[in-house]
Amino acid sequence: MDDDVPLILTLDDSGSGASAPLDDLDREELPNENGGSYDVVNDASSPAAGDCCAQQSSARHNWEMNYQEAAIYLQEGENNDKFFTHPKNAKALAAYLFAHNHLFYLMELSTALLLLLLSLCEAPAVPMLRLGIFVHATLELFALIVVVFELSMKMRWLGFQTFIRHKRTMVKTCVLFVQFIEAIVVLVRQTSHVRITRALRCIFLVDCRYCGAVRRNLRQIFQSLPPFIDILLLLLFFMVIFAILGFYLFSPNHSDPYFNTLENSLVNLFVLLTTSNFPDVMMPSYARNPWSCVFFIVYLSIELYFIMNLLLAVVFDTFNDIEKRKFKSLLLHKRTAIQHAYRLLITKQRPSGISFKHFEGLLRFYKPRMCARERYLTFKALNQSNTPLVSLKDFYNFYEVVGLKWKAKRNREHWFDDLPRTAFLIFKGINILVKSRVFQYTMYTVVAVNGIWILVETFMLQGGNFFSRNVPWSYIVFLTIYGVELLLKTTGLGPVEYLSSGWNLFDFSVTLFAFLGLMALAFNMEPFYFIVVLRPLQLLRLFKLKKRYRNVLDTMFELFPRMASLGLTLLIFYYCFAIVGMEFFAGVVYPNCCNTSTVADSYRWVNHTVGNKTVVEEGYYYLNNFDNILNSFVTLFELTVVNDWYIIMEGVTSQTTHWSRLYFMIFYIVTMVVMTIIVAFILDAFVFRMNYTRKNQDSEEDNGIVLEKEISKEEVVGIIELYKRSSAAAETAQLQKIVLQMDKYGQTSTLFLGRRSRTKSDLSMKMYEEEIQEWYEEHSRKEESQTPLQEPASASNSSLKPLSLRQRSQTVI
Amino acid sequence: MDDDVPLILTLDDSGSGASAPLDDLDREELPNENGGSYDVVNDASSPAAGDCCAQQSSARHNWEMNYQEAAIYLQEGENNDKFFTHPKNAKALAAYLFAHNHLFYLMELSTALLLLLLSLCEAPAVPMLRLGIFVHATLELFALIVVVFELSMKMRWLGFQTFIRHKRTMVKTCVLFVQFIEAIVVLVRQTSHVRITRALRCIFLVDCRYCGAVRRNLRQIFQSLPPFIDILLLLLFFMVIFAILGFYLFSPNHSDPYFNTLENSLVNLFVLLTTSNFPDVMMPSYARNPWSCVFFIVYLSIELYFIMNLLLAVVFDTFNDIEKRKFKSLLLHKRTAIQHAYRLLITKQRPSGISFKHFEGLLRFYKPRMCARERYLTFKALNQSNTPLVSLKDFYNFYEVVGLKWKAKRNREHWFDDLPRTAFLIFKGINILVKSRVFQYTMYTVVAVNGIWILVETFMLQGGNFFSRNVPWSYIVFLTIYGVELLLKTTGLGPVEYLSSGWNLFDFSVTLFAFLGLMALAFNMEPFYFIVVLRPLQLLRLFKLKKRYRNVLDTMFELFPRMASLGLTLLIFYYCFAIVGMEFFAGVVYPNCCNTSTVADSYRWVNHTVGNKTVVEEGYYYLNNFDNILNSFVTLFELTVVNDWYIIMEGVTSQTTHWSRLYFMIFYIVTMVVMTIIVAFILDAFVFRMNYTRKNQDSEEDNGIVLEKEISKEEVVGIIELYKRSSAAAETAQLQKIVLQMDKYGQTSTLFLGRRSRTKSDLSMKMYEEEIQEWYEEHSRKEESQTPLQEPASASNSSLKPLSLRQRSQTVI
Repeated sequence: MDDDVPLILTLDDSGSGASAPLDDLDREELPNENGGSYDVVNDASSPAAGDCCAQQSSARHNWEMNYQEAAIYLQEGENNDKFFTHPKNAKALAAYLFAHNHLFYLMELSTALLLLLLSLCEAPAVPMLRLGIFVHATLELFALIVVVFELSMKMRWLGFQTFIRHKRTMVKTCVLFVQFIEAIVVLVRQTSHVRITRALRCIFLVDCRYCGAVRRNLRQIFQSLPPFIDILLLLLFFMVIFAILGFYLFSPNHSDPYFNTLENSLVNLFVLLTTSNFPDVMMPSYARNPWSCVFFIVYLSIELYFIMNLLLAVVFDTFNDIEKRKFKSLLLHKRTAIQHAYRLLITKQRPSGISFKHFEGLLRFYKPRMCARERYLTFKALNQSNTPLVSLKDFYNFYEVVGLKWKAKRNREHWFDDLPRTAFLIFKGINILVKSRVFQYTMYTVVAVNGIWILVETFMLQGGNFFSRNVPWSYIVFLTIYGVELLLKTTGLGPVEYLSSGWNLFDFSVTLFAFLGLMALAFNMEPFYFIVVLRPLQLLRLFKLKKRYRNVLDTMFELFPRMASLGLTLLIFYYCFAIVGMEFFAGVVYPNCCNTSTVADSYRWVNHTVGNKTVVEEGYYYLNNFDNILNSFVTLFELTVVNDWYIIMEGVTSQTTHWSRLYFMIFYIVTMVVMTIIVAFILDAFVFRMNYTRKNQDSEEDNGIVLEKEISKEEVVGIIELYKRSSAAAETAQLQKIVLQMDKYGQTSTLFLGRRSRTKSDLSMKMYEEEIQEWYEEHSRKEESQTPLQEPASASNSSLKPLSLRQRSQTVI
Repeated sequence: MDDDVPLILTLDDSGSGASAPLDDLDREELPNENGGSYDVVNDASSPAAGDCCAQQSSARHNWEMNYQEAAIYLQEGENNDKFFTHPKNAKALAAYLFAHNHLFYLMELSTALLLLLLSLCEAPAVPMLRLGIFVHATLELFALIVVVFELSMKMRWLGFQTFIRHKRTMVKTCVLFVQFIEAIVVLVRQTSHVRITRALRCIFLVDCRYCGAVRRNLRQIFQSLPPFIDILLLLLFFMVIFAILGFYLFSPNHSDPYFNTLENSLVNLFVLLTTSNFPDVMMPSYARNPWSCVFFIVYLSIELYFIMNLLLAVVFDTFNDIEKRKFKSLLLHKRTAIQHAYRLLITKQRPSGISFKHFEGLLRFYKPRMCARERYLTFKALNQSNTPLVSLKDFYNFYEVVGLKWKAKRNREHWFDDLPRTAFLIFKGINILVKSRVFQYTMYTVVAVNGIWILVETFMLQGGNFFSRNVPWSYIVFLTIYGVELLLKTTGLGPVEYLSSGWNLFDFSVTLFAFLGLMALAFNMEPFYFIVVLRPLQLLRLFKLKKRYRNVLDTMFELFPRMASLGLTLLIFYYCFAIVGMEFFAGVVYPNCCNTSTVADSYRWVNHTVGNKTVVEEGYYYLNNFDNILNSFVTLFELTVVNDWYIIMEGVTSQTTHWSRLYFMIFYIVTMVVMTIIVAFILDAFVFRMNYTRKNQDSEEDNGIVLEKEISKEEVVGIIELYKRSSAAAETAQLQKIVLQMDKYGQTSTLFLGRRSRTKSDLSMKMYEEEIQEWYEEHSRKEESQTPLQEPASASNSSLKPLSLRQRSQTVI
């Protein structure tokens, strides 16, 4: 029989344990009061309501359903999915589960990537990757069909109503439709037409589950737009005013080609703003009248130094504000998710908390790969009141606790504590040595000397073939020193402790690379020569020395995921512009083009003979073209850096129409937006971090969140009993191992350490500590105004109703 | 007889008024207990200590001395002068007073400016301003002698000990000495030598009293330097690593001139960082191998987008922190100053506060131009407890209250209330009209139409002479509309109210300019044509429409003084670099120079004939030279914008040595520092302001600090009595006028409004509200640990001693 005696009662031996009838009642009653959204179907499938055994199995089934729904709620809370997309019945649940696993996500991602990568092979293709129209159009159709499949799965899960209401999905559907038609047209006509819509393919990538960060970035960018546009208008307004002034002032000067029409005047002031103007637009007027420089100085001071900074200030401020609001809404969303999950896990008989049995059931769905020990430790970590039940207040900490990685706290300080005496002493000596300051500073000195050595060596080595066949002795000496250091550290600290520090990992990989470089040199492996070149990276180790650098580099690593997602966002913009650029400007610039423009020199390619030597004059700028997507990306990067912005723009403009300038100007403004937001993000992250360090100067050295929990042998035995009854063999075996371990060392209890790295959310929690309480109160006031939370039984019904749209009237007891 | 009966007692008729004997005691005793630093000399000058009249006059004299010293303390508090420079005796006081008035300040400033302006006339002089060596050297010597005089005055005031301890003054003295010797050498040799020391002349300007803001900026820049340098090292470090990598990777490519030596590699990566690199250093390697762009993309992403932003973040953070600390120390400094002043103004008999008589005496010295009415109102505004004495707690608000401008509150709402009925109705109608939304939006529409008109007109007007003799009718129409608007507003609101708004003032001046432009056009006054060109400025009025713009522009005006001082700071850096540049690079670039360099084209000036037309090919870049100080400034501005940075650097380098690059690189880094700080400043100011508006959304519309105080007729009569007794005729007459006014309107009291604009300090006060209390407590704890503040008599002695180093033992009763 399925035991339902709450484990905790057994373990704690609390007198007022729940009696069996109550448990039975519990099992039978619960689906009625706390059952999830899937009861209807479930009830339909249970054949005989009167049959005790069937009823019991049905109750168990219901419990499983509740676990699953609670797990889904928690996942939605974590991923910030809105609750109106919550699956509403068993059919939707099946679709939901189908569409929510890594296999499906990977399919989504690979389809999106395939579609994006197709532009490598389409019309202005990368030469090596060119494919026939039939091939790439078929591939595209295939990918689009997969997307259709994905969308239909999503529709099944969401239902038609919600599907229509979900904006992003609707946009995706429209884009899909257009792409489909175009792909068929291409297949029929067997030739590519102007397909700017290809730029919209990005939406398939953005909609991927794995690209959540990109979506958030885009949202943040769009939210920052209104104030940005306001200030941008101010910028453009001043530009227009100055363009009119400039036209009036300088157009009488006929040797000044930059201000002869209002349009030129505007364009050149725009160019001046990018500060990448060669040739310099100021020069002709400056040559005529030295005082004309005042015009340019005033213009640049206002635009470049005032309004551009203002732009940054406004975006930074908005960004700051959005970050806080986002954090707040995410926090409250998680809280609501926890409340939903909680209501599904409590029983009517004991509405004050969740028992371990139900908690364990939840975790089975929420984190399937968590082992039994960790599940119990998580439960214990949550349960601060030490009663057998986890109350709602404790359960609010779910997200903070569930991420902890649990490890038995070792009594051994070093890995070599168990070794024989002599060995122990040797290793202990090494341990003390590598931990000593002298050793550290010696290594810093070695690295510094190595750095200077490399610098001097490179400086002496003017030209010639550096990859000489004989390995320089200095290289071997330094590498030996690093090798010895690595060996000492690994033996002194033990490999696990050694590699647990990021800095050591860095040392290790650099030394490894250097060693590989040595191999490459020694065995003449030409293709690996580039590894030799990585030697100067050793010098990065010097930055461990100063606290500020450590802080900076730590922050850098913390920021890395976010930075990467921002980079990806930028790449998506790049993709759109690259497609548009390719459609319009593919093949327009080539060597010796643009002879009518002012930048002709930069595109010149002449191969003439002076005396008896062939001289090649290369302007090179024809390399910045839109001939295929890779070239377009490089060109766009050049434009982002506003390096040679003017030359590229003028080159293209002279070969097409002057409307092409719009493309370049819009691109400049878009990158300006994204870059300003990146700057704002970095500023915000660093200032936040520095404020945090300033606020918590005492607890500065800890790395991550650490929690300590002790489990006694009886507790473990209790859980084993529980698992045995539900015949979970794997879990039982695993737990038994712990008992054996305890027996071996003669302990009655084991201390476990839960550890995880600190996230931005943790930092925010601490920073907004005071405000968070206010938010919670405000939030619960809002909830209470709908239904009082104090009575969970009734609350669970009414407050969930508007969210999951369940039809309670159909449930049968 | 000098009446010493406290005025307040008379006015308030409080029963426990001080008796005459007590007052006498007060007068006699006070110099003993509370006397200032100047008692010694004062005592020496009083002939007979026993004589009652002499003693009384001596007491009065002592009181005057106390007033003066208190005023000096308050000034020191306001100007953030350290108290160790406080004048210590009567002789020092005389010197102090001599060196602390606007005449002296102006002399200081003009001497400094003269010295700076001399570089216009010295050796590489501006052609029009060239002076003979004898003339400018004599001028310099004269200016230096004036500086010596100023310094000697300062020494007299500070005393030799303090003079030596004061760092800035010592540096100034050394510079003065060097300058003196050099000027004499120039005079003797009758030829200029390399005088880089001229760059140090800036210190004379920086040391001026009027340049306090510049000094603060410089201090802030220097305080921000350590973290800045840390990150700069990181930047340079990555640059070196990439230079080495680049050298290894690209130097085998012989067609790549940018990476053929390590030095070139470094320089060109530096150039790449400025993003003003024409020719593009990436191109040759990119032409050879497309994948080499990865090197440049990684380099730029790390350096430009990560570390440069990090630089901004670190400076911004430090800046923020420094701003707060500065505000704190200034606040506490002011508090200490107020404490010092307070101790000098209370009497032994009534140690709980300052009576009006003594407060009035203080104000006579602190703000000589304040009228009697304002003095009394200030006293009343301070005195929140409504007792006859101002307590220390109330006196702490001194700086906030003393700046208020007091005006009698008018009962009349409009200026035309007193006019006859008909006129009143007409004006009232106009008033309602100009205040209506319809009128405002009509005007916005007119301005917008005007703007579009100007744009279209200018666009149609391609080339030709715009300043045609006939005035365009559109100009007259719009100007008429603006004129009518101005007239309506002036009559409707009254000229005073009209001009009290900054926006109206702007409207007024723009319309006036437009009118002047019309005159210029009508009467063909060629030199004033530029006024016509200012027409588009009208469009700025449109920015009144949106709240964000109003906020931005308001903040801009609030920031203006600070921005100006930052600009001046930048100019001082410019001056130093201009002098150095002129000494080394004067005359090195000229048309057709630099033929051996890669940028030869930019310096070419060819005048050749094609067919029968003379074609002038101008490279223009020879205009960016260091031939005189004005040219140098323009060149340095070009370098600041990093516009053509590379071309200017290469031009100069090719004509001199490659060490010249150091000059340009150092300049780049210095401007980067200053610019980053300017950006941080703007960011900080705006974010601060926006936070402030967010915090005080309700009280957002008020403009400035407003205080209201009522004075009854009896009070005024009381003060008149007081002034009569001290035979101050002017004050008496002034106050009598108020009484007459009251009598005329039959009022028994008049309401006065004190008003001043809000400063950054007020904003900070509100922002740090909570922390300020902590600071005060901490501060007073620190003070108390020396002496308890509660007993002012004893506290005044001991806590002042270490500051003013007074020799109390010498005071004679």
